[in-house]
Amino acid sequence: MDLKSLIRDVPDFPKKGIIFKDITTLLKNPQGFREAVDSMLRPYENEKIDLVVAVESRGFIFAGAMAYKIGAGLEIARKPGKLPAETIKEEYQLEYGTDALEMHRDAVSPGQRVLLVDDLLATGGTALALARLVEKLGGEIVGFSFLIELTFLNGREKLKNYRVETVIKY
Amino acid sequence: MDLKSLIRDVPDFPKKGIIFKDITTLLKNPQGFREAVDSMLRPYENEKIDLVVAVESRGFIFAGAMAYKIGAGLEIARKPGKLPAETIKEEYQLEYGTDALEMHRDAVSPGQRVLLVDDLLATGGTALALARLVEKLGGEIVGFSFLIELTFLNGREKLKNYRVETVIKY
Repeated sequence: MDLKSLIRDVPDFPKKGIIFKDITTLLKNPQGFREAVDSMLRPYENEKIDLVVAVESRGFIFAGAMAYKIGAGLEIARKPGKLPAETIKEEYQLEYGTDALEMHRDAVSPGQRVLLVDDLLATGGTALALARLVEKLGGEIVGFSFLIELTFLNGREKLKNYRVETVIKY
Repeated sequence: MDLKSLIRDVPDFPKKGIIFKDITTLLKNPQGFREAVDSMLRPYENEKIDLVVAVESRGFIFAGAMAYKIGAGLEIARKPGKLPAETIKEEYQLEYGTDALEMHRDAVSPGQRVLLVDDLLATGGTALALARLVEKLGGEIVGFSFLIELTFLNGREKLKNYRVETVIKY
């Protein structure tokens, strides 16, 4: 199945000059969504995975299906202030300024084998922050799984200490 | 399985006097997450469902797994400004002021049978806005499925024109 053909280019979003890769046209196609989830899991099918950790919010869509399929637990990393219990935080650089991700302090049990999931690998800043959070909590990172990789942004270089699998490359 | 025992009460979140029902402790339990997803689907197992529509962002987690399991497509409703292509909008009342949800104008095909999903039914304002969006797009609403219902907030009354199924009631 040609998943790329199900992704819509939206010019000038979120700002002028950027072509946004809109996955909603893939999600609403039942075969497309199924194939996307299966393809994101396939590289790890021989790995034991205890926990899938997803970044808000499009990452939640794929991570929910992936954790369900393999019978793993699910945890979420969110923007500051959104998680209710005690959290740890990791900041990362944006083009201008910084942003941050938080996870609950009890999100990961030491030694758990963790698969990190998001829809898109761009510069890799968010993904690296996610990996650091999971490692601080004692998780063992099996790897990353992304649906889309924007190869010209070199996010893979920033994640060179980890296994990185992506389904669709631009 | 006692799903209620997997949900954590967090006092004074997001503000003083509110006891927040934290589902992350359920999500990270593999049997708990699986049972939650299966229980959200069970009332509709004899219904044909073409599309699952979820509200950001915790709704995405369950909707992803549910759409995957039943082989349906998935669509998302988001806060204003987050969806990249042409949208329609529906406003709803909050305690103070208003908020709004958007969906892509091409999210639903006329006549599609749609299951609406979120983690929590509180006052029902967001859920009613979601139903109106889907109806404007020509979708036929099969019903709502929520993990948690806060019965004392009477959200079910606001949704009385629809089938409403909830797994855990407080």
